Amino acid sequence: MKKVDDKLKMVYLDNSATTPVRKEVRILIHDLMEQGFGNPSSLYDLGIASEKILKESRRIIAKTLKARENEIIFTSCGSESNNMAIRGIAETYRKRGKHMITTAVEHPSVLRTMEDLEDHGYEVTYIPVDSKGNPDMEAFAKSLRKDTILVAMMMVNNEVGTIFPIREAAALIRAQSPDCHFHVDGVQAYGRLAVDIKKLDVDTFALSGHKIGAPKGIGALYVKEGLRIHPLISGGGQEQGLRAGTENYYYIGGLALAAKLILEDRDKKNTAMAAMKDALLKALAKEDVEFSINGNGDENDVPYILNLSFPGVKSEVLLHYLEGEHIYVSQGSACHSRTKGSSETLMAMGRNDEERDASLRFSFADDTPIEAMGRVARAVKAGVEMIALMRGGK
Amino acid sequence: MKKVDDKLKMVYLDNSATTPVRKEVRILIHDLMEQGFGNPSSLYDLGIASEKILKESRRIIAKTLKARENEIIFTSCGSESNNMAIRGIAETYRKRGKHMITTAVEHPSVLRTMEDLEDHGYEVTYIPVDSKGNPDMEAFAKSLRKDTILVAMMMVNNEVGTIFPIREAAALIRAQSPDCHFHVDGVQAYGRLAVDIKKLDVDTFALSGHKIGAPKGIGALYVKEGLRIHPLISGGGQEQGLRAGTENYYYIGGLALAAKLILEDRDKKNTAMAAMKDALLKALAKEDVEFSINGNGDENDVPYILNLSFPGVKSEVLLHYLEGEHIYVSQGSACHSRTKGSSETLMAMGRNDEERDASLRFSFADDTPIEAMGRVARAVKAGVEMIALMRGGK
Repeated sequence: MKKVDDKLKMVYLDNSATTPVRKEVRILIHDLMEQGFGNPSSLYDLGIASEKILKESRRIIAKTLKARENEIIFTSCGSESNNMAIRGIAETYRKRGKHMITTAVEHPSVLRTMEDLEDHGYEVTYIPVDSKGNPDMEAFAKSLRKDTILVAMMMVNNEVGTIFPIREAAALIRAQSPDCHFHVDGVQAYGRLAVDIKKLDVDTFALSGHKIGAPKGIGALYVKEGLRIHPLISGGGQEQGLRAGTENYYYIGGLALAAKLILEDRDKKNTAMAAMKDALLKALAKEDVEFSINGNGDENDVPYILNLSFPGVKSEVLLHYLEGEHIYVSQGSACHSRTKGSSETLMAMGRNDEERDASLRFSFADDTPIEAMGRVARAVKAGVEMIALMRGGK
Repeated sequence: MKKVDDKLKMVYLDNSATTPVRKEVRILIHDLMEQGFGNPSSLYDLGIASEKILKESRRIIAKTLKARENEIIFTSCGSESNNMAIRGIAETYRKRGKHMITTAVEHPSVLRTMEDLEDHGYEVTYIPVDSKGNPDMEAFAKSLRKDTILVAMMMVNNEVGTIFPIREAAALIRAQSPDCHFHVDGVQAYGRLAVDIKKLDVDTFALSGHKIGAPKGIGALYVKEGLRIHPLISGGGQEQGLRAGTENYYYIGGLALAAKLILEDRDKKNTAMAAMKDALLKALAKEDVEFSINGNGDENDVPYILNLSFPGVKSEVLLHYLEGEHIYVSQGSACHSRTKGSSETLMAMGRNDEERDASLRFSFADDTPIEAMGRVARAVKAGVEMIALMRGGK
């Protein structure tokens, strides 16, 4: 009986796509809604109570980045944060220059925004990555120009988990293009990697709630003190005039609590996730599954993302096979799984059509049960065999 | 004892600033967070369950506007909806013309956005209003030009409650500037006034959740089928490519439920709110309070907003006096109460500094207790007398 129960239990390995709302966060949001509702801009006590929650949440998020409170702007999501930084900087500094740099493997909210700005007279250099997904830092250094106004780079690649050399990039920018601004998409890093924002030496930094146990619909943007940036949403002067709209202090409170909780025992959690990744790789090897790692396959990848290709396997079929076993994984990222056929990251890494179509991303949370990895490997094995059988039978 | 309890009970008359989250909505949001969490873009069943809630919510909101499902774009707030429509249309049609029209009394998310576009080479005509807050439709008709690409007009003024002649404006636009687009800020109208979007003949229509019992942090924009509009937030292709970001289907579900609930017995609720307004005016007269109405003071104002000036009274002092009596009202609107000293609407209506500083907005909900109006009037009377006394004593 025990075995059947275990088999039915969901193993959710798509935490980089989105996370469940943590129970504590869900209850806090509910209670905030029950206890008050004032508009934080209102002059009376109901408004001031909401304003206090906003202020305290801002203090907490600032602390997690070692930033100042006035450097935190709350937004509605990571995509808004990326758009706000890129469009805001492009607009504000367009008279200084129209050249921008990013990498070929950024999140769609960066890539599509850059492409849009190209249509509006900006010039964008896309830095290539090597076969393991690491940006070509020599090409990067060479691409920095006097009229470069913005570099946008992710801290962790969402599809394969490679860690990008943010400090090295910052040092190159400061040395070669002192007027250039540096935006970091920290969505896949925040809560897991240490972010000391002053040491990282970035100008803006995007984070998202629903990757760390807060709901979908909340994010933030760090904006370095003194940096002027054209707002994406103008209006009532909220968020220091940088982001209009009555503040969603329910979710903002939830974001702050989620950040606090995920950052507790950060090292221990990363160790646990590294052990999960290791256990899954070993279990797959034990089952004699043929696979290759997309990524560095070492400590230059984050412990919580593992991207594998299974030669000859259509990964969408395998994904659905695993779903039938209550195991949830994804192809590349969810962000464009319905709009784009194939992974942009793997394409930039030089993988051909077949290799890209054969890839799956496994992304862990710190409470993912490590003992389930054997079951996952067995299910992958069974799925791969079934697919081979089906193909053979045609 | 009964009387003391009543006195302590809060009377919230600032529903145009923001509303409490309805209990049913709060519980639904909580339950959605508890029951699931899939990314609506994910291919597996968890994602499909989220996508279903999104779809059903879109169907409900579309129905409330008599619109099609593919015409509803979910956003993070009314301000975003207004920015998205105005900036999106301005950007998309800039080659056709750079002239836009709005009124002098729009919400800051419209006015500040228009001012920003003026800084970027657009020309904006601001239609004046009369002393009662009604737009000058003759001036409007004259301002329409061949190169006018956008008219942005509110359906209900947020500060004084005047109803704007949207259908008349639409007819003028269609007759005189057939290539011009018509954006309506419906934030203060939605849920209370009938909105038959095809009959209104508008191109885009903004609405906000936190004015109708949903949380702060959710809104929508109606975008007429076939209308191309440049996205404000680009990325993963969500919302038909018009609004990137993983969908906050928890709040979207809450918005749909709130819309359903507020629209039940709409006529009856409006009758009830008209009776409240009448009761308050009569009670103030009975208490011999000196006041004048800012607005039409008839059925050309919505029943749920009442803006009054109390001659010689600093309304901020009166606001805080009423707060001490657990009665909540506002000066003008909350949206810029901390950033702007004075009401833009009343200024456009020709009120001088003193008159503007003497004004308070009372905004009702359908469940506001009508029997509290006597207490509100007595508190206003006592407040006004106290203020006069303090002034005399100086």
